[in-house]
Amino acid sequence: MDFGVLLSAFEREATPSASGRMPRQDQLYACLRTAILSGKIEEGTRLLPTRALADELGMARNSVLYAYERLAAEGFVTGSRQGTVVARVGLQQTPASVPEAPPVLSRRVAGIVRPGDGMDDPLPFLPGTPALDAFPLAQWRRHLERAWRNITPAQLGYMPVAGNVALRQVIAEYLRVSRGVRCDASQVFITDGTQNGLDLCARLLADADDIAWIENPGYSGARSAFQAANLRLVPIPVDADGLAPRPQDWTETPPRLIYITPSHQYPLGAVMSLERRLALVAQARAAGAWIVEDDYDSEFRHQGTPLSAVQGLAEDAPVIYLGTFSKVLFPALRIGFMVVPPALAPVVHRTAGALMLRGRVAEQLALASFIEAGHFTRHLRRMRQLYAARRAALHDAMTRHLQGLVTVSGGAGGMHLSARLDVPVADTEVSRIGRAQGLVLRPLSRFCLPGSAPAYNGLVLGYGGVPAERMDGLARQIREVIERALLEA
Amino acid sequence: MDFGVLLSAFEREATPSASGRMPRQDQLYACLRTAILSGKIEEGTRLLPTRALADELGMARNSVLYAYERLAAEGFVTGSRQGTVVARVGLQQTPASVPEAPPVLSRRVAGIVRPGDGMDDPLPFLPGTPALDAFPLAQWRRHLERAWRNITPAQLGYMPVAGNVALRQVIAEYLRVSRGVRCDASQVFITDGTQNGLDLCARLLADADDIAWIENPGYSGARSAFQAANLRLVPIPVDADGLAPRPQDWTETPPRLIYITPSHQYPLGAVMSLERRLALVAQARAAGAWIVEDDYDSEFRHQGTPLSAVQGLAEDAPVIYLGTFSKVLFPALRIGFMVVPPALAPVVHRTAGALMLRGRVAEQLALASFIEAGHFTRHLRRMRQLYAARRAALHDAMTRHLQGLVTVSGGAGGMHLSARLDVPVADTEVSRIGRAQGLVLRPLSRFCLPGSAPAYNGLVLGYGGVPAERMDGLARQIREVIERALLEA
Repeated sequence: MDFGVLLSAFEREATPSASGRMPRQDQLYACLRTAILSGKIEEGTRLLPTRALADELGMARNSVLYAYERLAAEGFVTGSRQGTVVARVGLQQTPASVPEAPPVLSRRVAGIVRPGDGMDDPLPFLPGTPALDAFPLAQWRRHLERAWRNITPAQLGYMPVAGNVALRQVIAEYLRVSRGVRCDASQVFITDGTQNGLDLCARLLADADDIAWIENPGYSGARSAFQAANLRLVPIPVDADGLAPRPQDWTETPPRLIYITPSHQYPLGAVMSLERRLALVAQARAAGAWIVEDDYDSEFRHQGTPLSAVQGLAEDAPVIYLGTFSKVLFPALRIGFMVVPPALAPVVHRTAGALMLRGRVAEQLALASFIEAGHFTRHLRRMRQLYAARRAALHDAMTRHLQGLVTVSGGAGGMHLSARLDVPVADTEVSRIGRAQGLVLRPLSRFCLPGSAPAYNGLVLGYGGVPAERMDGLARQIREVIERALLEA
Repeated sequence: MDFGVLLSAFEREATPSASGRMPRQDQLYACLRTAILSGKIEEGTRLLPTRALADELGMARNSVLYAYERLAAEGFVTGSRQGTVVARVGLQQTPASVPEAPPVLSRRVAGIVRPGDGMDDPLPFLPGTPALDAFPLAQWRRHLERAWRNITPAQLGYMPVAGNVALRQVIAEYLRVSRGVRCDASQVFITDGTQNGLDLCARLLADADDIAWIENPGYSGARSAFQAANLRLVPIPVDADGLAPRPQDWTETPPRLIYITPSHQYPLGAVMSLERRLALVAQARAAGAWIVEDDYDSEFRHQGTPLSAVQGLAEDAPVIYLGTFSKVLFPALRIGFMVVPPALAPVVHRTAGALMLRGRVAEQLALASFIEAGHFTRHLRRMRQLYAARRAALHDAMTRHLQGLVTVSGGAGGMHLSARLDVPVADTEVSRIGRAQGLVLRPLSRFCLPGSAPAYNGLVLGYGGVPAERMDGLARQIREVIERALLEA
């Protein structure tokens, strides 16, 4: 045993910077283990008696004993009357670490990347981010604290996969009244948010190689979830009336899942017409397809009243309705919901429970009481006004400063506008330059399935988190970004 | 327009029991919409003028106006000087609701069901449930409340997919010291729990039809996650030294993923020997396979010190290490973690962020400070003693009352024992009869892949949530259940 090696390794390990607050006995154990694994201390070597090593290292004998016992328990050494001896640890089977090619993920997630950065740091125009500073945090905290005070030990355990029944009832009631959804609480499943719901739909309702229609351009989260579940993505164009499949699409690429954002198409902003909605429900039913209705921000309708959900248009419509509290309350809450047809509820309950374990009762109870106390509706009303004002301010500022450069579309609802670039410059370039200046200008082209037609070139601007008084300056800044991109093009 | 029909439908809708707290104007809207969609009010029908209908129904004219406007906004009616007229809603395309076969889920989730009931209601012997009443809830609440008080609006938004860096650092430190895991915070990803980690491993690291080795018998959650991701499950037997693949398994069914519970095999309780661990790491590396190490309850080691993780046995071992706070703290927390090799961290970060959106910063900060304040370690120490006592009490009671009926195995660690049935009775029958008596006796056969050999017949008994003083009575009760099953057999 090369004791010098061990000692120097130990002293190196024992420096506070390298080991944090690891107790010295654990450091000794780790050091000996590494030395044995690496072959520095060979098989058959007799370790120093505990007392001798303790003296040598200036540590308590019990600490050395602990390290030896732990090594023995793990099979690195064996103890006998002759002392503690290093065991055969099959070292020859452990090749030395060799530099390898960078690890590759599965083919099914190829090309799936988080849609740009800026998400963790809400810079101006990051889509999907509400006015976080306007959230009534004190009220929420009060409800949360009360829920935690009343929690029972049993509620700290695993919970039914559908979530807390009080919250499911409140959600069902809200959806019936405000969204025209036909449901009762038994059809409502609490999710961790829409992405979780999409993921469940993909795995529970479709098999590998089944066809999923997605809006093009459309929400990348749906694309990612379906692709990761090995579905075949078929992009369907959207027009001013929403998803616009051609008659032959139903026979040439018959869908198993149809993903739509009918209340406010993401990102172009179209509202799906009633005629399209009814036709889609009828044709999906005939084709044995499921419609996945993502109603992500329908609460914010700046012109007219919110449109009711597709789900409610027919009894037993083949629709899975997805909703979220991320936009109306706040994203970090991570609570959304999924409404399934009555006949589907029991099978989803049985199967989804094996794929997800649930808890978070206190948060769910807090949310239920927060809604019942009227805070949800009150906040919603305030945010409608706030977003309408922010939308108007952005629209006006763009009209003032971006005339001739972009054409704005969408905007009857929600928290974002989309703008087509009318000048010969790639939206990805504009986005890149904007990012360097602290703006998140999401390129519209990235919302399209690669290689699909028609091509879109534009920007998606989330205004939910941007104060109205900043819009003028920011629109000027966008103009400078586009002009700079034009110069560089 | 059959006004009588409408009116009676409206009155029916308007009863409080049917509609909850839906405002009358919304009820009127919903009632008219249903009547139009169902064809009760035909295309081209002129609706009563708002004032006349308001008088008829005894409601404010503004409420009727609201209902009409909402119908118009959605395209159900059109307004003109001649009044409000029902639009063509493509009714012929909406077939009447017909009774259908019950909806069928995808083939890939066939056979996946939640492992029995009893999970939502912690009855005696439900595996995986800790002593919830011993959790220091007041301390936890204090840390949580403080975290919420300090939260900033930006922290209410979406967060990096890897989770909060303070918590990741605390976890990395704990794993280095206590579990021999080689990692720093950059390799740690916060998950919603182990199931979430399994799901990510399956989708990110394996493709459809890739082979996944699972322990047999083994944890059903791993089976479900892999099956739902279209992996080909290959059951590998376990013996007293843990997972026991034959040499030809590496060539005949070369794995892409290898799922193991080396610290405390679930459910049989074996500890994987050092020789097996080293061989597995070397062979997995040579085969280009990933080891998924589920270290679900290694903190509770009742004999000897906890064994270090397989992950730490070699530099850059091809291991994804999964851990959870569900067992040491409480399941409803829904926080776990995944440690990936350094080279994998950036690609996982980029891709996983598109598959999962993260938040819950306050909970993560609270957990980090709870751990740093020493509550985690203190609770762990107390629970080790508590579970050791409960385990001993159950073991003794089983020896007293179940001699000749069962043979107990496992139990050096964790929160469960497994017991082979030594009498000719099916474990599923024992389980069924036990459930009727308020006991959760999970059948060991259900932990095996259907049709796999060898066959197991026994019970898995979780003692984490069962007080020691109840063990004697409960063991008697188990004997009665087995005897009754024998009589019925």
